Amino acid sequence: MKKTLKEIASLVGGEVLGNPRTVITNIRGIDEAGKGDLTFIANPRYLKKIETTRASAILVSPGTKGVNKNLVVVKDPYVSLGKILDLFYPEEHAPPKHAGLPYIEKGAVVSKDATIYPGVFIGEGAKVERGVILHPGVYVGRHVFIDENSILYPNVSVYRRCRIGKRVILHSGVVVGSDGFGFARPGRENIKIPQVGYVQIDDDVEVGANTTIDRGTLGKTWIQKGVKIDNLVQIAHNVVIGENSVIVAQVGISGSTKLGKSVIIGGQAGLVGHITIGDHVMIGAQSGVHEDVSPNQVVSGSPHMPHRKWLRVEACVSQLPEMRKTLASLLQRVKELEQALDSKS
Amino acid sequence: MKKTLKEIASLVGGEVLGNPRTVITNIRGIDEAGKGDLTFIANPRYLKKIETTRASAILVSPGTKGVNKNLVVVKDPYVSLGKILDLFYPEEHAPPKHAGLPYIEKGAVVSKDATIYPGVFIGEGAKVERGVILHPGVYVGRHVFIDENSILYPNVSVYRRCRIGKRVILHSGVVVGSDGFGFARPGRENIKIPQVGYVQIDDDVEVGANTTIDRGTLGKTWIQKGVKIDNLVQIAHNVVIGENSVIVAQVGISGSTKLGKSVIIGGQAGLVGHITIGDHVMIGAQSGVHEDVSPNQVVSGSPHMPHRKWLRVEACVSQLPEMRKTLASLLQRVKELEQALDSKS
Amino acid sequence: MKKTLKEIASLVGGEVLGNPRTVITNIRGIDEAGKGDLTFIANPRYLKKIETTRASAILVSPGTKGVNKNLVVVKDPYVSLGKILDLFYPEEHAPPKHAGLPYIEKGAVVSKDATIYPGVFIGEGAKVERGVILHPGVYVGRHVFIDENSILYPNVSVYRRCRIGKRVILHSGVVVGSDGFGFARPGRENIKIPQVGYVQIDDDVEVGANTTIDRGTLGKTWIQKGVKIDNLVQIAHNVVIGENSVIVAQVGISGSTKLGKSVIIGGQAGLVGHITIGDHVMIGAQSGVHEDVSPNQVVSGSPHMPHRKWLRVEACVSQLPEMRKTLASLLQRVKELEQALDSKS
Repeated sequence: MKKTLKEIASLVGGEVLGNPRTVITNIRGIDEAGKGDLTFIANPRYLKKIETTRASAILVSPGTKGVNKNLVVVKDPYVSLGKILDLFYPEEHAPPKHAGLPYIEKGAVVSKDATIYPGVFIGEGAKVERGVILHPGVYVGRHVFIDENSILYPNVSVYRRCRIGKRVILHSGVVVGSDGFGFARPGRENIKIPQVGYVQIDDDVEVGANTTIDRGTLGKTWIQKGVKIDNLVQIAHNVVIGENSVIVAQVGISGSTKLGKSVIIGGQAGLVGHITIGDHVMIGAQSGVHEDVSPNQVVSGSPHMPHRKWLRVEACVSQLPEMRKTLASLLQRVKELEQALDSKS
Repeated sequence: MKKTLKEIASLVGGEVLGNPRTVITNIRGIDEAGKGDLTFIANPRYLKKIETTRASAILVSPGTKGVNKNLVVVKDPYVSLGKILDLFYPEEHAPPKHAGLPYIEKGAVVSKDATIYPGVFIGEGAKVERGVILHPGVYVGRHVFIDENSILYPNVSVYRRCRIGKRVILHSGVVVGSDGFGFARPGRENIKIPQVGYVQIDDDVEVGANTTIDRGTLGKTWIQKGVKIDNLVQIAHNVVIGENSVIVAQVGISGSTKLGKSVIIGGQAGLVGHITIGDHVMIGAQSGVHEDVSPNQVVSGSPHMPHRKWLRVEACVSQLPEMRKTLASLLQRVKELEQALDSKS
Repeated sequence: MKKTLKEIASLVGGEVLGNPRTVITNIRGIDEAGKGDLTFIANPRYLKKIETTRASAILVSPGTKGVNKNLVVVKDPYVSLGKILDLFYPEEHAPPKHAGLPYIEKGAVVSKDATIYPGVFIGEGAKVERGVILHPGVYVGRHVFIDENSILYPNVSVYRRCRIGKRVILHSGVVVGSDGFGFARPGRENIKIPQVGYVQIDDDVEVGANTTIDRGTLGKTWIQKGVKIDNLVQIAHNVVIGENSVIVAQVGISGSTKLGKSVIIGGQAGLVGHITIGDHVMIGAQSGVHEDVSPNQVVSGSPHMPHRKWLRVEACVSQLPEMRKTLASLLQRVKELEQALDSKS
């Protein structure tokens, strides 16, 4: 699709600063955007990237100034982004062209050396390579790619346009590519931001039962080679999990957080969004990680701290009632000392 | 169904105080109950409502006294309720009358302007309105109602009699209407209390992948207009989520808790049952909320406290080892002061 | 399958200490192993069991000494175990022999008094007894046994060889028998250890929506009679849950942990692996349990402590800012006292 900045500004009620005849062919995140792309700044954290992005135009809030770039100025860039995404990525839900057993839509390409059980659905434009096993009840959305020798256990759902590598194992109930949790004006109007990216899962990844991996808002949520994820884990939109990382059950990783290689996260830990975790970091079970962690650190606690410090802190926490008692007795003793000294002078 | 109090008392081995010929036609919670209804008091918290309920009769424990109402006195009201519910709501699991592709039972009404993929099951008495999209593997139980333009992604399950509004989105693996976790004598006999209510999801709600919403024990679990729920969230029986609230991934909300409008809950937080959260409350990630929160508050921590206080408390927690050291040195210094003063006198 | 120790050692590049002609017919855990079995020690915790095991041979690390048993010494016993398991339990994913509606593979035995909905898959060698109800989208793997009157709600997946008792209820999206999270050299090579055990669910168990129960690595994960498990709970490989225990939503129980009878665990609590929880223990919501708990205890907190102590500790935590203030003022007052006394002498 091609639209000029003028057409886009008119759709969202915005003002163009720069050349209104600039042609936009796609929408991308600020790091990936290049020629022909519109990007956006919805979070002030990313304002500094306005100078370095290679995007042809940027959707910004009023007051963004002194920039030698094409801008579309709107009241709420995130809300406007939603409208523009709807224009560029109209969602398709057309009924299947024909049905069989399993239900393979016309235009899907399935290797004759793949095993497809009854009750599987494979959408138009999907490609399933040799050696793949799709168990009963698996859903493969349109234009999904599943590479050689991967196994999808019963009732796995892979939404449209996601990409699964070689020798990947997805256990029952895994959901890959559901919409990220992106709403403008949360708690007020909750305006849905279309989630038009995808999920890329590289070779040799295994994902545990009922884990959920949301598609990118734009661009991809990316699970790199050799990563192992346990059951009931939540991976939000645009998260990146570096090679060989290990994520234990019930962990939650919020949007746009990036993990390095060989990160290990204990069960039920939670990570906020938009942070970076270095290579070889270890995060203790039930931790709450609220900011960047540099490589090779071991952290625990909620909020997290270095693991050794956390051990000392936890030892004190259980001593708190005794500490409070000591403090009260000291107060009394100091008061008495002060009186005694006072009476002497 | 119609039963007299005498018949009901005989079923559960109870004693009628009042008119044994009172006719009961339904069972309802103490707030909703009216003429013809039997209600119950299983939790002493609700004893004060015994005077104001409009129920025709109340199932109570021995020793409930001085009440000018029809009572059925039983040893364990919650266990007895289970037996009475089994009588009034016999569970049906009859095999389908006929099958097709998708499997639409006789007596289901599906708009010709709905899109129904292969592998969908729609039960008898269900109604699916125009513009609805049911993806492969979706299960629509008997007497379910799905209103216009809602989208159910692959492998969603909606149990019998639940109600889904307009423009609702349910992502893959969502379960709506599973039995609430209600057992009498937990840890001993674990007697199942039939969960015979339903779930009502209002217009414009979106629910993330693999989230579970249990049906009411009696009456409904209710997700109001515009609410957005992320992945892997647990909503227990008879919870109410007020309009436009936002619930982030992996939150758990226990039975009968009521949220006001525009409440925002951070990831992995947990709320105990039977509490009320006011409008516009914000609850921090990983919090544990154990009692009512009044409107417009921001709370954090487990157990929760005002967010500003929690920030101060957390700052101290990480200082605990230093505080303990200071305390030990003070103890020594005060001891020396006492000795010095003692030796002077 | 029969293999000599010599053949096994040659497969994994190990050295036999003892009789290389010893014949191995199966692999079992150290407690269950008997004549003809090979067992292993991957965790030093279990070294003390080397003398008492009845296994015919043991897979050990270099340096394990002074033992009058047949040993296979390898660099990394856990990695080697993986290879040996692959040999003894080759995984089958052959396509179904024929398909129908529902899809019942040849060689499955289904009672004529069971109700099987459309879209159900039942694998070869599975046995489904009378009174069982399998809702649409249920997957029953090969050689699974489902005993009388159990109900499996839509889209439940039961992997190969698992065993379900009488009157069991599995809610929508439950996964029984997915692979345990077992990888050698985590964070480095993440070598998958085949999970070749099974899950046994005894009579009268109920499991909530989207809960996951992993199969044993070897032997079984075991949910005993009368246990009730809520939604979105994670039960790892080789866990044992004792009779009548109650597990509330979003709890996570790590591998090989054993619970006694009538244990009650509050929502979102987490238990580490390889610990033992005694009969009648109660564990508070959001607790983190890191070591054995003896019978009849009530514990809370993360890390857990006796519940009464935890109440006192939590009361102090919220007082921390005041305690810190008091401490600072005491420091100043003691300093002044010291100066005053000093100036007097």
